[in-house]
Amino acid sequence: MKKTTGVCLLACVVSFVASAAGATQKPVEPIAPATGTNEAKAELGKKLFFDPRLSKSGFISCNSCHNLSRGGTDNLKTSIGHNWQQGPINSPTVLNSSMSFVQFWDGRAKDLKDQAGGPIANPGEMAFTHDLAEEVLQSIPGYVTEFKSVFGKEKINIDQVTDAIAEFEKTLVTPNSRFDQWLEGDKEALTADEQAGYKLFENSGCISCHYGMGMGGGSFYKMGMVEEYKADSPSEGRKDVTGKEEHHFMFKVPTLRNVELTYPYFHDGAAQTLTEAVDTMARHQLGKKFSRAENGQLVAFLKTLTGDQPRSRSPPCRLQATRPRNPNRLSKAVQGL
Amino acid sequence: MKKTTGVCLLACVVSFVASAAGATQKPVEPIAPATGTNEAKAELGKKLFFDPRLSKSGFISCNSCHNLSRGGTDNLKTSIGHNWQQGPINSPTVLNSSMSFVQFWDGRAKDLKDQAGGPIANPGEMAFTHDLAEEVLQSIPGYVTEFKSVFGKEKINIDQVTDAIAEFEKTLVTPNSRFDQWLEGDKEALTADEQAGYKLFENSGCISCHYGMGMGGGSFYKMGMVEEYKADSPSEGRKDVTGKEEHHFMFKVPTLRNVELTYPYFHDGAAQTLTEAVDTMARHQLGKKFSRAENGQLVAFLKTLTGDQPRSRSPPCRLQATRPRNPNRLSKAVQGL
Repeated sequence: MKKTTGVCLLACVVSFVASAAGATQKPVEPIAPATGTNEAKAELGKKLFFDPRLSKSGFISCNSCHNLSRGGTDNLKTSIGHNWQQGPINSPTVLNSSMSFVQFWDGRAKDLKDQAGGPIANPGEMAFTHDLAEEVLQSIPGYVTEFKSVFGKEKINIDQVTDAIAEFEKTLVTPNSRFDQWLEGDKEALTADEQAGYKLFENSGCISCHYGMGMGGGSFYKMGMVEEYKADSPSEGRKDVTGKEEHHFMFKVPTLRNVELTYPYFHDGAAQTLTEAVDTMARHQLGKKFSRAENGQLVAFLKTLTGDQPRSRSPPCRLQATRPRNPNRLSKAVQGL
Repeated sequence: MKKTTGVCLLACVVSFVASAAGATQKPVEPIAPATGTNEAKAELGKKLFFDPRLSKSGFISCNSCHNLSRGGTDNLKTSIGHNWQQGPINSPTVLNSSMSFVQFWDGRAKDLKDQAGGPIANPGEMAFTHDLAEEVLQSIPGYVTEFKSVFGKEKINIDQVTDAIAEFEKTLVTPNSRFDQWLEGDKEALTADEQAGYKLFENSGCISCHYGMGMGGGSFYKMGMVEEYKADSPSEGRKDVTGKEEHHFMFKVPTLRNVELTYPYFHDGAAQTLTEAVDTMARHQLGKKFSRAENGQLVAFLKTLTGDQPRSRSPPCRLQATRPRNPNRLSKAVQGL
């Protein structure tokens, strides 16, 4: 990969990154299919991923905001949570999320397992508690049997729940994009315009953040490195986790895989189209203004990053509760509104 | 089928039924697999069924309340709609709904096509308009191509939308329940208790309403024929449609197919368990009180009505918009809350 002025600029400006210098060593790699999956655990995790009973209302599941029919996102500016609350930040795609070095935009979870417990107990999202989630699952004989088979214990706990969900999420990779076919040697896989877009992507500095298999997910960078970015979101990014002023507005670089499907863009969901997103990135991160033709080539390239989508069968609905949800406790939020 | 005092009681008390006498002529029949499906139209309908872009918020799809992983229901007392509104009535299962003589609890739609347009435009459900639904779909090139291929026209209209959704819904039948296996001659398919439960079902009068392939869906009956039923729901049933006092509290008899999965029960979702539902039906509709053992046998029988669930693959997410949703018009409800 060529070193560019864009890369030098990044290396100078950014103080908090995994390693800006290291980043330039990593090319983009084709996505490898998931391997080493514990199939039984992933199958259990899939049922949990789709199960709205992990929310207080019984209406919201992981799939509500990370919809596997919609690029692993909800295609909303920010997500809708319990009691129709509007979330503060755009819902990142669950696809290829195993390739991220940390989870959430501000990196507050170290891995997928750590992440999975967050939304369940977040009052603005699924609004449940881990205790109640365990209690509900324990009341469903089918789950008791399946957890026992996977984890060897009678008692279900949240640690097993998040472990299983993470195992399922690790299977949600999207290999075989046209760009990956091209990287693997099929020179017909990309059009001339798309290849020109990739050249721009390499030579303008985009690749210094969007590198590796995930084309993102490997570092934190400041949003608005060159030109200040005024966000629609209250999030202060990494600073919300560390409290350090130098981390103000540092966000995890999002993956560009399947970016055609994961609109709208940025942590505040402010950009509705790829054209707009490319323009914003160029101005605020690189201090550039692409011509209309260049923007078009970059967008054409970005659309080649859509890989094979997980087309898993919807989980069976055999895991029914013998003991119903306690409407006095669990459904009050529904009943009272 | 034996005539019983229960059946006579029904025939005397009920004035508004398709034909109570006719009803007793119809036995229960095994579910036949869907036939004559227009595959391309059903495939399009499936995409629409799962697409939240048919709602104002972009968050609610048909599948939100008629979840195919959850027996075709949401397992809530009453559904959650746009802006977290609580619906007035329990969401009926979409499974085997093609077997119903009319749609909705009050029968206000004559068929599935007529039904499908309702929730899209209902301000308490998906809160969209048919015009906006057409406009959104027309902005998505993948849909334009697919509608043209199915209907032969450039312009998408709501009539095509509901036609396609209905075609998909007609495929959602659940053959091969243990009870159907038994009906077809496999005498080992039911236990002695389950068979005893079916005898009670026949001889106590249950079958006079829950007959035919759908075991329901063939007539309107009053809720609380023998003992008045005080509902949690404001619905007046069929009277809401006809305005006639004699139709007060007349509801479409729901299907019992997959009833184990479709909890909670009745138009107001008041009964959480089958045990409770059987007890309520016996008292209010038949003037009976089953013993604990009889109730247990009936519940055991009802659990044999769970057939093969549709396990369709989630639809692909290739149908993306080139023109994004207009956030000023469409997402205000989300943004402003």
